[in-house]
Amino acid sequence: MQEKRDCFYKLSMLSKSQLGFIKSLHQKKYRKENELFIIEGIKSITEFISSPYDIQSIYLLPQYHSLLTGLPANIKLFEVNNAELNKISTLQTPQGILALVSVPKNSILETTQLKNNFTLVLDGVQDPGNLGTIIRTADWFGFKRIICSLDTVEVYNPKTVQATMGSLARINVYYQDLPLFFKTNKLPVYGALLAGESMYKTGWGKEGLVILGNEGKGISNEVMPYINNPVHIPGAGNTESLNVAISAAILCADIYRNLQK
Amino acid sequence: MQEKRDCFYKLSMLSKSQLGFIKSLHQKKYRKENELFIIEGIKSITEFISSPYDIQSIYLLPQYHSLLTGLPANIKLFEVNNAELNKISTLQTPQGILALVSVPKNSILETTQLKNNFTLVLDGVQDPGNLGTIIRTADWFGFKRIICSLDTVEVYNPKTVQATMGSLARINVYYQDLPLFFKTNKLPVYGALLAGESMYKTGWGKEGLVILGNEGKGISNEVMPYINNPVHIPGAGNTESLNVAISAAILCADIYRNLQK
Repeated sequence: MQEKRDCFYKLSMLSKSQLGFIKSLHQKKYRKENELFIIEGIKSITEFISSPYDIQSIYLLPQYHSLLTGLPANIKLFEVNNAELNKISTLQTPQGILALVSVPKNSILETTQLKNNFTLVLDGVQDPGNLGTIIRTADWFGFKRIICSLDTVEVYNPKTVQATMGSLARINVYYQDLPLFFKTNKLPVYGALLAGESMYKTGWGKEGLVILGNEGKGISNEVMPYINNPVHIPGAGNTESLNVAISAAILCADIYRNLQK
Repeated sequence: MQEKRDCFYKLSMLSKSQLGFIKSLHQKKYRKENELFIIEGIKSITEFISSPYDIQSIYLLPQYHSLLTGLPANIKLFEVNNAELNKISTLQTPQGILALVSVPKNSILETTQLKNNFTLVLDGVQDPGNLGTIIRTADWFGFKRIICSLDTVEVYNPKTVQATMGSLARINVYYQDLPLFFKTNKLPVYGALLAGESMYKTGWGKEGLVILGNEGKGISNEVMPYINNPVHIPGAGNTESLNVAISAAILCADIYRNLQK
């Protein structure tokens, strides 16, 4: 079938040890060791191809071949069958195409980048789906970066990557020692707190950091003193809290609305 | 230890067949057959106890015993050990206490109840976590009921129940043939659509139905013709969509804000 192949593509069969290697990347330990993570689905992969991320290899069912155009020559391409894809996929229903992406070098967070912007700060978010959904939502509202505490769930967790629906390709995520980071920060610091002021009365300015806490414990004691604008999402008072990704979304929507005024 | 037991409590050991029975309720088929579903965690169980739901039995580690007060006499109570709890729990990290709740008799949706209210209508939402998060969020904003298409995920799925964080005890969920339901509806119908008008310009009135579609396919062709107010969540245009629970939350927040004016 040589004639059907694009000359830039290097199609090969997958060895048993390659299957095992990709499967090992389902685990954090091996993602860290090999500085690689998995993305799945044509939408995600297309977004990563046109991003600064470095895609190392793509594994796909033959019928997905035609969907990939203009692939850089350095990306290794492997045809797999359904059984192989089921083995390497992190999804219950694999999406026909999977890629290995290099973890980018730790870029340094320049605090000047934070000026004239709003940035979400996640303090101990534990659920990978929540982190991914927050990244996707932040992207919708034009946020450029997210700062995570060191104990926030790993952004390359397959569930996080999947929940971002490709937005991870556009949002920079920085892991920081939050108390250390806040010590030198000069921007207004908003914190999502039940005891805060209504977000509709807070008068978001043109820049700031917005802290969201852990799913069960909220914002940590170490970070709490740095909040100078506690904000609250007004509600009917029936239930005691909102999911953290939901809170983030409602705050982002209101910040975005204010920036458009 | 008889002296430590509240006289209303009937504490017993769990038989192997009881363990097997509870485990069977992890599956939809057996939930349907036995008209029972599982709730877990002291918060959820406390909220269900003070709701119209009928709790059939509670299974708990000894140390959770003291947290339950004023338990109705008809609820059977069983002490379990960690190994037993791990077997019957639907969670990776069991929360020390689990209960079986009767599926309520199909209450009929009275369309008069919908007047002077906003109600979410879910058209084919498939992810149990999304449904649960939507219920929790709707509860936060004082919504009383949710209407689901017949192909929306089952509300008694353990992941849905868990994501509601007890809000299921307060929100009535009705499964309806949506085209049939909309045929006789006279309320304004809002639909979350990418091509809709900005939600900030839509001028929510005092009542209406707000349709949210399936995670991948959006609102179905059968339901689309009934939308008379397509609404859109303004964003920066980087990503093509928001998660359905996120969209629901942002719409609910804006509706709630308008109702407070």
